[in-house]
Amino acid sequence: MLIVKKFGGTSVANKERIFNVARRCIEDYKAGNQVVVVLSAMGKQTDVLLDMAKDINPKASRREMDMLLTTGEQTSVALMAMAMDSLGVPAVSLNAFQVAMHTTADYSNAKLKRIDTERIYNELENRKIVVITGFQGIDKYDDYTTLGRGGSDTTAVALASALHADACEIYTDVDGVYTADPRVVPKARKLEVITYDEMLELASLGAGVLHNRSVEMAKKYGVQLVVRSSLNKNEGTIVKEDTKMEKMLVSGVATDKNVVQISVEGLENKPGVAFKLFQHLANHNVNVDMILQSVEHGGKQDISFTVTEEDADIALETIERHAESSLKCDTVNVTRDVAKVSVVGAGMMTHPGVAAKMFEALYDCGVNIRQISTSEIRVTVLIDEKYVETAAQNVHEKFSL
Amino acid sequence: MLIVKKFGGTSVANKERIFNVARRCIEDYKAGNQVVVVLSAMGKQTDVLLDMAKDINPKASRREMDMLLTTGEQTSVALMAMAMDSLGVPAVSLNAFQVAMHTTADYSNAKLKRIDTERIYNELENRKIVVITGFQGIDKYDDYTTLGRGGSDTTAVALASALHADACEIYTDVDGVYTADPRVVPKARKLEVITYDEMLELASLGAGVLHNRSVEMAKKYGVQLVVRSSLNKNEGTIVKEDTKMEKMLVSGVATDKNVVQISVEGLENKPGVAFKLFQHLANHNVNVDMILQSVEHGGKQDISFTVTEEDADIALETIERHAESSLKCDTVNVTRDVAKVSVVGAGMMTHPGVAAKMFEALYDCGVNIRQISTSEIRVTVLIDEKYVETAAQNVHEKFSL
Repeated sequence: MLIVKKFGGTSVANKERIFNVARRCIEDYKAGNQVVVVLSAMGKQTDVLLDMAKDINPKASRREMDMLLTTGEQTSVALMAMAMDSLGVPAVSLNAFQVAMHTTADYSNAKLKRIDTERIYNELENRKIVVITGFQGIDKYDDYTTLGRGGSDTTAVALASALHADACEIYTDVDGVYTADPRVVPKARKLEVITYDEMLELASLGAGVLHNRSVEMAKKYGVQLVVRSSLNKNEGTIVKEDTKMEKMLVSGVATDKNVVQISVEGLENKPGVAFKLFQHLANHNVNVDMILQSVEHGGKQDISFTVTEEDADIALETIERHAESSLKCDTVNVTRDVAKVSVVGAGMMTHPGVAAKMFEALYDCGVNIRQISTSEIRVTVLIDEKYVETAAQNVHEKFSL
Repeated sequence: MLIVKKFGGTSVANKERIFNVARRCIEDYKAGNQVVVVLSAMGKQTDVLLDMAKDINPKASRREMDMLLTTGEQTSVALMAMAMDSLGVPAVSLNAFQVAMHTTADYSNAKLKRIDTERIYNELENRKIVVITGFQGIDKYDDYTTLGRGGSDTTAVALASALHADACEIYTDVDGVYTADPRVVPKARKLEVITYDEMLELASLGAGVLHNRSVEMAKKYGVQLVVRSSLNKNEGTIVKEDTKMEKMLVSGVATDKNVVQISVEGLENKPGVAFKLFQHLANHNVNVDMILQSVEHGGKQDISFTVTEEDADIALETIERHAESSLKCDTVNVTRDVAKVSVVGAGMMTHPGVAAKMFEALYDCGVNIRQISTSEIRVTVLIDEKYVETAAQNVHEKFSL
C-alpha cells in the first residue's frame, strides 16, 4: 500500500511530538507500506514568521511573504527526516522545488496545477519514507507560492491523487468528524463515514476539521480521506463518495457564532437593487452568506443577509456610503448577537420533512427563527446567539444522532 | 556599475541592522548602480538550527542538515527584500534554487561549480535590488548543499565573477584587514591594500576576516575585493593581485593560540616513517600544521608537529594506538601552552633577512623559539603561549608596521 499521511502544526510542535509522528509513520513503513508524509510548519512557527514580516514591513509583498513562510515547512520536514533516521528508518525530506509542486502564481493563495512524481517514486523505491512540505508550491517563475488556509490538507490530497495512493490520512487534534461540536452538544457522536458533500457543507459552516478546498479536491479526484487524531489510535472518520448504503437522514448539526445580521430596509422594489447592493459589497471583498428578501410592502422591500464578524464593519461602511446616492434605502439595522444552527445530511435529498422536523425541535424549546436558508443537503436557521446550545442539543436529540 | 555586497549574520541580526544594510544598498542603487546583495542567516540563527537538529538527532545526515540550515538565509533575504520595499525600492529575494547556484554534492562542504545568471540579470534590468542567499547551493540531485565555513563570502566572490561585477564588497564587523590583531597589538594599523597571497596566509593563520576559500576563488577569477565595516563608512582594505608598486616588506603580524605541539620521539630513521605517522593522522581527519623532523641521533629521530586544540586528543589517541605496532616510537610528548606568531608579506620574497629580523625582535624581548616554519611570504615561529602578546608587539614594532 502507498499511504499519504498529513500532520498539522500542533502534531509537530516539539521534539516529543515529532518523534510521536515519526513512530506512527514507521509502524506503517515496517508493515511493508510505502509512506509519504506531508507536514505543516511547527506549532506557531508561521505566526512567528508573520510577526517578523509585519515588524519589518506591514505591507510586505505576497511574493516575499511566501518566500519567508515556506521556510517553516522546510524546517519541519528536515527535522522529521532526522527523527526517523535516528529511529533507524531511512527518510528524505523534500520541498516544493524538489518534488516539484507546480501552482498558479497567486502568491499566498495559489492553486495546485501539477505534481511531479518521479523523485517521490524513486525515493519510495529506495525504501525511504518521503517527508514533503505541505502548504507550498512553485510557480512558472520559479518563485515560492503558498496555498492559503488549509493548504497542507490540499497538498496531501493532491499528492494522494497524483501518486494513486491507497489511503490518505489527515491527522488532527480531534478524533474525527462529529455529529455536532462536542463543546456545544455533549452527546455529539463521532461519524464513521461522511460523504464529500456533507463534509463540504460542514466545513463551510465552520464545524469541519477539514478545509473546503481539500475536500473539493478529494471529491474531484475521488481520493478517499480518513480524518483521525495524531494523539490516539481511534478509528477516525472516512470521507468518501456517496455510499450506496441507506443514507442517514442527517449526519450532523453545526453551529456558528461568528455571524452578524444586517438588514437594509426600505429599498425600492425594482430590478437591479439587489445586484447593486451585493456588487458594492463584493467590491470590498465582503463575503455574504444567508440572504433574505422580503415581500413588497408599499412599493418598498427589505433585504437581510449575514456576514462574519470580521466583515461586518466594512459591510456597514460600504452600505452607508452608498445609502443615499445609489441604494436609496431608508434604514440599516445590525444585529450582532445571532448564530447559525444547521443540519447537514445527504439523506435529506430524498426525505422531505427534515426542515419541518428541525423547526419542530426549535419550537419545542421555544427558540425563535430569524431567517432560514437551505441547500440540497442542508437546512440552516439564524437564531439569537444565547439559544445556540439549547437549539443545537434539541435538534441533535430530535434526529437521534 | 554592478556591485556585489555581502553582509554577514551579525549585520542582519535584528530589524534595526536589517534596515541599516537596506539603506546602504539603496544608496548605491539610487546612485544608478545595479546592486546584488548576498546575506548570511540572521545572527545566531544557524546555531539555533544546529541545536534543534542536535536535539532531534546528534548524528543527523549532512543532507538533512543542509535542508534545515538553508532556511536560515532564506529568512534573511525575504526580510531584507521586505525592508527595501518598505523604503520604496523594489527588491527581490532569490535562494539557491531560484538563482540557480550549482555545487558538488558534498553536503555541508560543497564546492560551487556554476552559477546561472539569467534570472539575476532579468531582475537587475527591471531595476530591482537582487538579494541572494549566501552559503547555499543545489547539487545535481536537486538537493540543497551548504558551502562550509565562510561560505557566504565564497558565494559573493563567485557571483561577482559570474556577473562580471565591477566591485565585490565584503562587509564585516571590523574596518578591514589590520597589520595585527588590535586586541593583541594595540598599535596595529589598518591596511589599505593587501595581495591575495598575503590575505591567504593571514586567513590560514586565523587572523583574517575573510575565509581562505573565498580569497582563493577571488585570486583564481581576478575578483578585486573590498573588506569593510557594515557599522561605519571607513574605507576598508582592498584585496587584489600583486600591485606592481613597491611592496611592503611585511604587511602583517598574526597570532594564533589555538595550537598544541606534539612530539613523537625515538622513531626509527628509515624511509616511510613520516609517511606512516601522517597517514594515520590523515585517516582520522587530523589537520597537521608546522612539522619539524630532527636530525638523527643514535639511529633514531624525533618528529614534532602542531595541531589545533580540537584535534589534539584524537591525534594523541591515534599515535598511541599505533605506537608499538606500526610506529615503533619511544615516547609521545604534548605541549598545550604554545602559540604561533607569524609575519606575512609579499615583499619578503625579494628581501632576504626577514626571518633574521623577526628572530632578533624575539631575542630582544627574551622569547625562546620552539619551532620555525616558513613559506615564500610568511615566517612563523612557535613560542610559549604566555609570551604571545610581548612577541607580537615587538615584532610589529621591529617591522615599523
